[in-house]
Amino acid sequence: MNAVHTTDVWQGAGRRVFFNEVGTRDGLQMEQAFVPTEDKIALVNALSQAGLSKIEVTAFVSPTAIPALRDGEIVMREIERRPGTVYTALVPNARGAERAIEARTDELNLVMSVSETHNLCNLRMQRNQSFAALAQVVATAQQAGVPVNVSLSCCFGCPMEGDVPQQEVFGWVQRFADLGVQGITLCDTTGMAFPTQVRAMVAAFRQRWPQLGMTLHFHNTRGMALANVLASIEAGGDRFDASIGGLGGCPYAPGASGNACTEDIVHALQLMGYDTGVDLAQIVAAARSLPALIGHDTASQIAKAGARLDLHQPPADFAAIRERALAKG
Amino acid sequence: MNAVHTTDVWQGAGRRVFFNEVGTRDGLQMEQAFVPTEDKIALVNALSQAGLSKIEVTAFVSPTAIPALRDGEIVMREIERRPGTVYTALVPNARGAERAIEARTDELNLVMSVSETHNLCNLRMQRNQSFAALAQVVATAQQAGVPVNVSLSCCFGCPMEGDVPQQEVFGWVQRFADLGVQGITLCDTTGMAFPTQVRAMVAAFRQRWPQLGMTLHFHNTRGMALANVLASIEAGGDRFDASIGGLGGCPYAPGASGNACTEDIVHALQLMGYDTGVDLAQIVAAARSLPALIGHDTASQIAKAGARLDLHQPPADFAAIRERALAKG
Repeated sequence: MNAVHTTDVWQGAGRRVFFNEVGTRDGLQMEQAFVPTEDKIALVNALSQAGLSKIEVTAFVSPTAIPALRDGEIVMREIERRPGTVYTALVPNARGAERAIEARTDELNLVMSVSETHNLCNLRMQRNQSFAALAQVVATAQQAGVPVNVSLSCCFGCPMEGDVPQQEVFGWVQRFADLGVQGITLCDTTGMAFPTQVRAMVAAFRQRWPQLGMTLHFHNTRGMALANVLASIEAGGDRFDASIGGLGGCPYAPGASGNACTEDIVHALQLMGYDTGVDLAQIVAAARSLPALIGHDTASQIAKAGARLDLHQPPADFAAIRERALAKG
Repeated sequence: MNAVHTTDVWQGAGRRVFFNEVGTRDGLQMEQAFVPTEDKIALVNALSQAGLSKIEVTAFVSPTAIPALRDGEIVMREIERRPGTVYTALVPNARGAERAIEARTDELNLVMSVSETHNLCNLRMQRNQSFAALAQVVATAQQAGVPVNVSLSCCFGCPMEGDVPQQEVFGWVQRFADLGVQGITLCDTTGMAFPTQVRAMVAAFRQRWPQLGMTLHFHNTRGMALANVLASIEAGGDRFDASIGGLGGCPYAPGASGNACTEDIVHALQLMGYDTGVDLAQIVAAARSLPALIGHDTASQIAKAGARLDLHQPPADFAAIRERALAKG
C-alpha cells in the first residue's frame, strides 16, 4: 500500500509499547502548589509499581527558577528503584548534570527547542548557545558513563513561528547524534502535531537513524494525542512520553491543555491489544490522588469516567420501570 | 496487509467525509438552560452556513418530557434551508413523525437501544416494544415519502450491561433494514468504543449491507473519539455524527463527557487532507458562541486553543530577551 505501512496499527497483537512518565517533572514544575517531598516520593513509587518503563523523576535546575522541584536530590535519592524502570531527570547545564549523577540518576534528559523564538523565550538562549551548553553536559555524562536523551521542543510546529521544516528538525537531531547521545525525543510542545505529519516524520527518522533511540512527546491541546500515538506506531515508533493526569503545558501557548495523559493513552492501547507494561488500575488510582496534591482537577478522562468496563448500576427504580414496561405487553 | 485495509487513512487525499451536526438536538436536550427560540434558529443557520451536510435540528417529543426542545415546530419552520444540507429531527413515535413531517423535516431520526437495560432506562420500553412503535413510525414516514434513519444506542457497549455482542447489534440492524429504512447510525452512547472494535464492526457492516446508509456516532468520554473516527474511515466509514462544542452526554453514565466535538474532529481531518465540506472558522465561531447560550464552558479543544496555526505573539519583553542572549555571544 505504501512504504511505511509495516504493521496493522489497529490490532496491537501483544506488541510492546514503552511509556516514559513525565508528570512528576514536566507536570509538577508547572504547578502553583509545592507538592511535599514525601508525596512526590510516594507518587514516583506508585508509578514504579504500576510498571512504567521510564520515569522522569525531577529536574536538577536552579531552585529559584523552578521552586516546585527544589527537592530534586532528596526525591531522586529516596525513591524505591524498581528493576526494569529507568529513572531519569532533566538537567539544563553541567552543574545540573553533576548534581543528577551524584544523586544516582540513571539517565539525563536535556532540552532545547528547534524553534529559535521558542528557545529564546523558554531558555533565554539562542539555539547555538543552547547546543554548546548541552554539548558540555553530554561530555560530563559520557565521562560518568550515564546515558543521555535530548528532548527537542517544537518539532511539529512552534506556537510563535508556525511550522518548523523537517529538515531543520533533523539538523538538530544530527548534531546531537554526532555527539553520541543515546536517544532523541521529538516533542510536540504545544499540541500542533497531526497524524499525517507525525507518521511522515517518524518514518523518516527511523529510516535515517535506525539505531538511535526515538521517543515521541505529544500534547492533547487539540485532541489529537491518541491519534498521533497511533500514527507514530504505524510508522515504527514504540516509545512515548506521557503524563499522569495529563499534567503539564506550555506558558507560551495560552489555552493549551497538558501532555498526553498516561492513563488515557494506556487505557486505549491496552484495549487495542498492545502490551504497555503498565497496570491500569494502579495508574488510575495514582491519577485520582493528584487533585488532592495539586489543588485542582486534571484533564484525565479515565480518572473521571473509569475504564471502559467499569459498569454502572441501573437507576434505583429500575425494577419498577421494567414492571411498568412489561405491563404494557 | 489485511482484508479491510483499502485506503491510507493517514492521508485524506481530498476524500469526502460527511458530518451530521447533532448539537442542536442531542446537545441542547441535555442542557438546563432553555436556549431562546431565535438563538436556536440563528445557531442552526450558522451551522448551515458552515457547510454541514446534515443537521439534526430538534426533536418532536413531548414538551413536558424534554422542555428544552418544546419549540421544535417553530425552529424547523423558520430556519433558512441551505441547498445541500439535510434537516433532520428525532421522532419517538407516530405522533412525533406527523408533527415533524408537517414542519417539513427532510428526514426522521428514530432511536432505540440494542441493550435491553439501557432501552428500559432511556425509553421505558422493552426493545421489542420500541421496535414495534418505531415500525409504525417508519410506515408513517414511508407513506409521506420521508426518509428514515435509525440510531441504535449502545452498539459498542452498554454502561450497565457491558459488551453487546456484534451479532445482537446486527440483528437489530437487519430488522430495520427489512423495514426499508434508508440509514442506520451505530452509536457509541457512552464512549465505550475503541478503535480495534470499531474497525471490525464497520467493516462487517459494510460487507453485509453495502447499500444501507451507515453513520457512526462517537462520544469522547474516554478520549478515543478521533481515533475511532479514523478506525471507521479505515474500514470504509465516511459519515459521522458530531456535536458543536462536544455538547451532549448520557444521564446513565456519570462522569461521561459529551459527543465527539464537531470542530475538533473537523480540524484534525482537514489537517490530514480530508474534505469535510465544513468551514472551520465559521464552526469555531459558532462553538465560541455556545457558553453565552448555555451558561457554561464546553469540552471543545479548538474553541479554547484555536486552530493549529493560530499563532501567538512572543512575550512583550522578547526583544530584551534576545538582546541579552546575543550579548552572551
